[in-house]
Amino acid sequence: MSTSNYEKGLKLLNKLHGGHAGESIIKDMQEICPDYARITIETGFGDIMNRPQLDLKTRELAIIASCVTLGHVTLQLRAHIEAALTIGATREEIIEVIFQTALYAGFAAATNAMYIAKEIFETTNS
Amino acid sequence: MSTSNYEKGLKLLNKLHGGHAGESIIKDMQEICPDYARITIETGFGDIMNRPQLDLKTRELAIIASCVTLGHVTLQLRAHIEAALTIGATREEIIEVIFQTALYAGFAAATNAMYIAKEIFETTNS
Amino acid sequence: MSTSNYEKGLKLLNKLHGGHAGESIIKDMQEICPDYARITIETGFGDIMNRPQLDLKTRELAIIASCVTLGHVTLQLRAHIEAALTIGATREEIIEVIFQTALYAGFAAATNAMYIAKEIFETTNS
Amino acid sequence: MSTSNYEKGLKLLNKLHGGHAGESIIKDMQEICPDYARITIETGFGDIMNRPQLDLKTRELAIIASCVTLGHVTLQLRAHIEAALTIGATREEIIEVIFQTALYAGFAAATNAMYIAKEIFETTNS
Amino acid sequence: MSTSNYEKGLKLLNKLHGGHAGESIIKDMQEICPDYARITIETGFGDIMNRPQLDLKTRELAIIASCVTLGHVTLQLRAHIEAALTIGATREEIIEVIFQTALYAGFAAATNAMYIAKEIFETTNS
Amino acid sequence: MSTSNYEKGLKLLNKLHGGHAGESIIKDMQEICPDYARITIETGFGDIMNRPQLDLKTRELAIIASCVTLGHVTLQLRAHIEAALTIGATREEIIEVIFQTALYAGFAAATNAMYIAKEIFETTNS
Repeated sequence: MSTSNYEKGLKLLNKLHGGHAGESIIKDMQEICPDYARITIETGFGDIMNRPQLDLKTRELAIIASCVTLGHVTLQLRAHIEAALTIGATREEIIEVIFQTALYAGFAAATNAMYIAKEIFETTNS
Repeated sequence: MSTSNYEKGLKLLNKLHGGHAGESIIKDMQEICPDYARITIETGFGDIMNRPQLDLKTRELAIIASCVTLGHVTLQLRAHIEAALTIGATREEIIEVIFQTALYAGFAAATNAMYIAKEIFETTNS
Repeated sequence: MSTSNYEKGLKLLNKLHGGHAGESIIKDMQEICPDYARITIETGFGDIMNRPQLDLKTRELAIIASCVTLGHVTLQLRAHIEAALTIGATREEIIEVIFQTALYAGFAAATNAMYIAKEIFETTNS
Repeated sequence: MSTSNYEKGLKLLNKLHGGHAGESIIKDMQEICPDYARITIETGFGDIMNRPQLDLKTRELAIIASCVTLGHVTLQLRAHIEAALTIGATREEIIEVIFQTALYAGFAAATNAMYIAKEIFETTNS
Repeated sequence: MSTSNYEKGLKLLNKLHGGHAGESIIKDMQEICPDYARITIETGFGDIMNRPQLDLKTRELAIIASCVTLGHVTLQLRAHIEAALTIGATREEIIEVIFQTALYAGFAAATNAMYIAKEIFETTNS
Repeated sequence: MSTSNYEKGLKLLNKLHGGHAGESIIKDMQEICPDYARITIETGFGDIMNRPQLDLKTRELAIIASCVTLGHVTLQLRAHIEAALTIGATREEIIEVIFQTALYAGFAAATNAMYIAKEIFETTNS
């Protein structure tokens, strides 16, 4: 089952974050902690994110809300705004999640997220 | 327009959080800061949450993700799990948002949210 | 100098947080970490909070803003709302700091702080 | 009343953050979320920050305390240190707020804020 | 391998958190999310915490530092202070980690952790 | 005693963070807040970090766990990964602390810390 989760996770990771995102993490972690890449892929993407109880678009929007709230994970916020677009979320939906989250994470955190979204929208054709 | 937002906000707040939730906040804040209640209702619920760009269920799931991530807003997490059920989210969807958020907010924060959800599920028939 | 800071700190702590607040901390920490009490008093109150560059009321209001933002330090938030009242801040000023902080810490955190303030105001005559 | 709050907010925003800060936000948000700019100006600056219950300098110092505590909102911390100087806070008062906040937000967060303040002081004549 | 991780994780969880801690989580999650219990045990305890690269005592002390910093996960902080004692950490070492963490997480968060440690020490014979 | 703490702190700071780290902080803070440098050195390093109740390596690993959890203190995370290496922690131990912390601080925060560690390992010979 575990091998299967790894393969499913790698496939999902590449689907959401672009062609070789999974392989890139595996390569980056190879020298310092290969198991960190494995668990990210196997558990994070294969075992959790892959579950059928919630569609991928809603998952990505919830992740965006969590990343806006954490505030400091700007790389991940960027990656998940891109993934949300990839999976079919509209720009309006992404912006609304940030707007709604402002009431919980504060407007400063939301403003920074708005600018990250704006930058992504300006440089992609999604 | 502002009066309209206040009325729309009060209506939405009562719809999501139960019959007299809005009136309860107004009464609680009356002596210390009536404008805080007004802005919560007018801007928070009337002007932001009421926007058509995102359905209420997805908004509630994103708010749950944000509350799990903040960690300390347990009263709000509880209120929004209940509101999510009220607006038609299934227990499975709520649990999945918490599960997915664990990867960003940490498993300790998610575990506490799981127990709050469990307690709500056990005491409601939603 | 250090002894002097300790004495000045103990005096300030008792002034802000009530008759025997300092002695209470010393007693509580006696068996697990006396130096933690000493540094809290000597450095926290004697060396930092005692500095003349900022008046005590503004310090207390800034501490309230920080505690609202942290969200989870409710005991300290309570103690500093009381200390702010003791040092001459009005209820209106305390409420305003919480209101203003809502834009940065989020309205959920601010709402919880509003209720703590309300409870203190209702049980004190300050 | 709402229109008035918008105008008052725009005026205050420009006063605190420089000549065209408000117009800049409006322009930036025009394509992705004009209402986000409107609510920031109308509610944030016009309806909340403009209230007479607390002077602007104390508001700015409380905002600085909140931004130091959040840690990740460095753009906003920078903007509010500049706004505090604009509204008449001294460098010593700003530094003291950061110093005092260190006890609640941690010295790592405070150290980073100290360096941001230092950089602003070195590049402005305020 | 996965089954093995589950068994190793359950064994470690029970060793650190008491006789039936693992079974308790499994039972609690049975109706709302059995996979959450499985992944906590299998990945959290079996695959990550079980790794030989770091001894269990240092892991527990690092977890305590993380829980003090999060601030709101008091149940977990309590459980890991107890686990640290179980695995052979002294009271002095636990207190020192909290003391050291005060410089990064703030003294308010550390003070609350000190009182939790104090309460545990007073009610256990460890 | 205080003077002694300052000298001990300066010595420890230079030992952990490189030849003139202490002098560098003193110089940086000279114009804006010399007492901030003094207290960092005297209390932070001389009075707290210098205590014999816990070895320096475990302190550094706990600090790393706290910095990963805060998320936004990347300069300090970098400095303490380097200090941990200096004091004799292995790369494996540092990576394991980040890995373990992922369960509490979230995988996004941990991933960013993994990349910071990787960058340090690639540019040092420790």
